[in-house]
Amino acid sequence: MIFEIAEIDVIAGHETAFEAGVAEAAPHFKAARGCRSFALTRGIEHPQRYRLTVGWDSVEDHMVHFRDSTGFQAWRRLVGPHFAAPPRVDHVERVIISF
Amino acid sequence: MIFEIAEIDVIAGHETAFEAGVAEAAPHFKAARGCRSFALTRGIEHPQRYRLTVGWDSVEDHMVHFRDSTGFQAWRRLVGPHFAAPPRVDHVERVIISF
Repeated sequence: MIFEIAEIDVIAGHETAFEAGVAEAAPHFKAARGCRSFALTRGIEHPQRYRLTVGWDSVEDHMVHFRDSTGFQAWRRLVGPHFAAPPRVDHVERVIISF
Repeated sequence: MIFEIAEIDVIAGHETAFEAGVAEAAPHFKAARGCRSFALTRGIEHPQRYRLTVGWDSVEDHMVHFRDSTGFQAWRRLVGPHFAAPPRVDHVERVIISF
């Protein structure tokens, strides 16, 4: 499994609506090919900065199959209006889980 | 629980030594007050970019108690020589874990 990490800055005042949109979008991820986990964190020092961490079987499952799906369109429709800037997206793999 | 997220860019060629240093430093975190989890990821698009994610009971457990400890000194001694730049450190809290 690899992880997509999307850093998303939202427009001030849109935090609650953004979080509700993410929760509403989660089933579209759960239904997607190769999607294994889905979590959202919010910054403490930067409370308008969120990180979405999504586990996928492969980068291709995210970048090809999901991006071409109606699920991705639903995600963008639900949360896109709250973005202050385009999300910054990376993919990572775990190298150490110690405890 | 909150999470420290440290984004660490390492010097090219130092990846293996850095990962070994992180593994060696892990027990210093495990022994620290309020430390609950410890994981390291490596970037796929940016393989010299690591993210250390450490669970703490509070920001203070990380920023006050751990930063003032011999464990922090050991961490910096083990991994500091591999840093290409100062780590970028944020604290976050989970708002959604959907599946």
